[in-house]
Amino acid sequence: MTQLWREDDRAARAAWSRIAEPGDPVAHRLLEAVGPCQALAALADRSDEVLDRFRPRFARLDVLDDLARAKSVGVRLVCPADPDWPDGVDDLDVPPVCLWVRGPLVLAGACGRSVAIVGARAASSYGEWVAGELAAGVAQRGFTVVSGAAFGVDGAAHRGVLAVDGPTVAVLAGGLDRPYPAAHADLIGRIGDVGAVVSEVPPGCPPTKSRFLQRNRLIASMTAGTVVVEAGLRSGARNTAGTAGRHHRVVMAVPGPVTSPTSAGCHELIRSGLAVLVSDAAEVADAVGIVGADLAPARRGEDRPGDEMASGDRRVLDALRPRRPTTPAQMAIDAGVGVLAATAALGRLELAGLAERAEGGWRLTRRSRSR
Amino acid sequence: MTQLWREDDRAARAAWSRIAEPGDPVAHRLLEAVGPCQALAALADRSDEVLDRFRPRFARLDVLDDLARAKSVGVRLVCPADPDWPDGVDDLDVPPVCLWVRGPLVLAGACGRSVAIVGARAASSYGEWVAGELAAGVAQRGFTVVSGAAFGVDGAAHRGVLAVDGPTVAVLAGGLDRPYPAAHADLIGRIGDVGAVVSEVPPGCPPTKSRFLQRNRLIASMTAGTVVVEAGLRSGARNTAGTAGRHHRVVMAVPGPVTSPTSAGCHELIRSGLAVLVSDAAEVADAVGIVGADLAPARRGEDRPGDEMASGDRRVLDALRPRRPTTPAQMAIDAGVGVLAATAALGRLELAGLAERAEGGWRLTRRSRSR
Repeated sequence: MTQLWREDDRAARAAWSRIAEPGDPVAHRLLEAVGPCQALAALADRSDEVLDRFRPRFARLDVLDDLARAKSVGVRLVCPADPDWPDGVDDLDVPPVCLWVRGPLVLAGACGRSVAIVGARAASSYGEWVAGELAAGVAQRGFTVVSGAAFGVDGAAHRGVLAVDGPTVAVLAGGLDRPYPAAHADLIGRIGDVGAVVSEVPPGCPPTKSRFLQRNRLIASMTAGTVVVEAGLRSGARNTAGTAGRHHRVVMAVPGPVTSPTSAGCHELIRSGLAVLVSDAAEVADAVGIVGADLAPARRGEDRPGDEMASGDRRVLDALRPRRPTTPAQMAIDAGVGVLAATAALGRLELAGLAERAEGGWRLTRRSRSR
Repeated sequence: MTQLWREDDRAARAAWSRIAEPGDPVAHRLLEAVGPCQALAALADRSDEVLDRFRPRFARLDVLDDLARAKSVGVRLVCPADPDWPDGVDDLDVPPVCLWVRGPLVLAGACGRSVAIVGARAASSYGEWVAGELAAGVAQRGFTVVSGAAFGVDGAAHRGVLAVDGPTVAVLAGGLDRPYPAAHADLIGRIGDVGAVVSEVPPGCPPTKSRFLQRNRLIASMTAGTVVVEAGLRSGARNTAGTAGRHHRVVMAVPGPVTSPTSAGCHELIRSGLAVLVSDAAEVADAVGIVGADLAPARRGEDRPGDEMASGDRRVLDALRPRRPTTPAQMAIDAGVGVLAATAALGRLELAGLAERAEGGWRLTRRSRSR
């Protein structure tokens, strides 16, 4: 076994990414205290029992092999001091010791204006459709879309971005040489070709349950906000949303039918106040974007004639009939206004093109009838 | 014309309900200042121009005829001092001067524990289904359901309550002798037979646009909360919700697909913070009911083995394979724990029935495999 890591901080970080599980607080405290090289040296001293968990893997460590294996599959090592390091992950209680990355996208820049789109693996066709539309829409607004390349919502989000040639990042739970799920190997390959694929563990490491959860914390912390498109009551996407909320990222959720179990987790996030409801890409951009520049247009109905009218005039307008004319005296009774007020209102409605004189009184104009 | 109203407060209120449009602030201030009888007398003195709006109808007033006409269709007059008066309407800036009511339900009691369920006339089948389910569900929890008997959500809500023999109130914009919409005459008749049908205007008055809006304020103020089931961006139901919010009633909205225009108004209400998202009758009862007694069960996923487990034990459990046994030494590497810790964890998992010894190591039990 090479002793490279004894003096090379980067190699030592690569070593630690194999030795310690993602999110391990003991490894983090040790590295913070003495740096990655000294921390490895500490493992040789067998007196500290709390480090026992690292020793079985330490004994089999081969950093040079890990680095060579990474290089052979186009994977580079990104460390905290590097210009490519996505700063957001440093907000985590236990940030990654390094990241293994494949793809042309510069993470630091891409994550500066980014949103995570995550959700149920067993998404409905509604959920997949919304995920694709949202992802394409925010990508077209200049946001990088980060997700987990899983079945369902994640995959639909990545595909939505690729369809509009936008920037997308997939964060995997296992090593980058074993794309998971296997059925998404092509998708993950395409993301690596044009965007970036990221993992906290070196090539060769299998994805495990705890690594999926730790992967979620990376997705939440790398981005300015997380959108949950569909999620059951028990779902990894809600876990991602929780991490995003704890780290003061914007948490968003897309509603769906209350009859759909895959929307129940989204509704609970909104009900609890953890997530803001979003309906489209404009609202997502509004929530996570630069204040002002990305403001979503206010949602309102179309304007209609009569909107700005005084209430008496509007009541006269509403009481006018399309064909049979009404006298001003009868109009006063029908609309509940004085006779003079009715006459004045009819004059104003005539000027506005809404009322017209006819034999025996007043009636609606053709234009007004089509209201 | 009879002069009955000169000394009879009730008859004078009946007169004012014909003379003044619902919600008229001038009539309200006048009645507050001098009482309904003196207020009518004031109309005879023609010097006050602001009262002109009332004079055309005043000239044609026939209170006895209005009261006889009401009686003939089984409609009674309910006035503010009556035991049957729904107190909530007094919170309005301009409360009704009286109510015209048909049906056996005592409004005051029924509205004490009540919820308004309103929404789009052009509801989707999803919206109508949800409205019916919600209405039946809250009725079964002892709530009176108040709505407007319109097409779509309103009608579905009333029908949902009638189907479970619950209490329901329909508030109409026009006189009770002209049920509107005409196609709901049978439905409105059934509501009047077992619940109550209410209007602010006397029999004979047509429903008008402004009366629909004023009707909405009654629905919002009579009830403890308003649920909007489906609503476009421009809808009367949002108007009802706005009134409910201004008068400190609970405002709720049911989400739906973001692809459905009839849910856009609901989503906007939730986004703006005016409405709380509700998914079912339990959540509605929780929001408007008596604190504690009507608490909705917390929504969470089912418990699974491993939920309460220490993270090291869980990683060992996750790393165990269903058939091929793993040695404790290999398990320490796979799970990222010390060898002693791996052995101890395997012992605990065996006690929990999740791991079993096999030739050459440990593997998952059958029970554990079905997780």
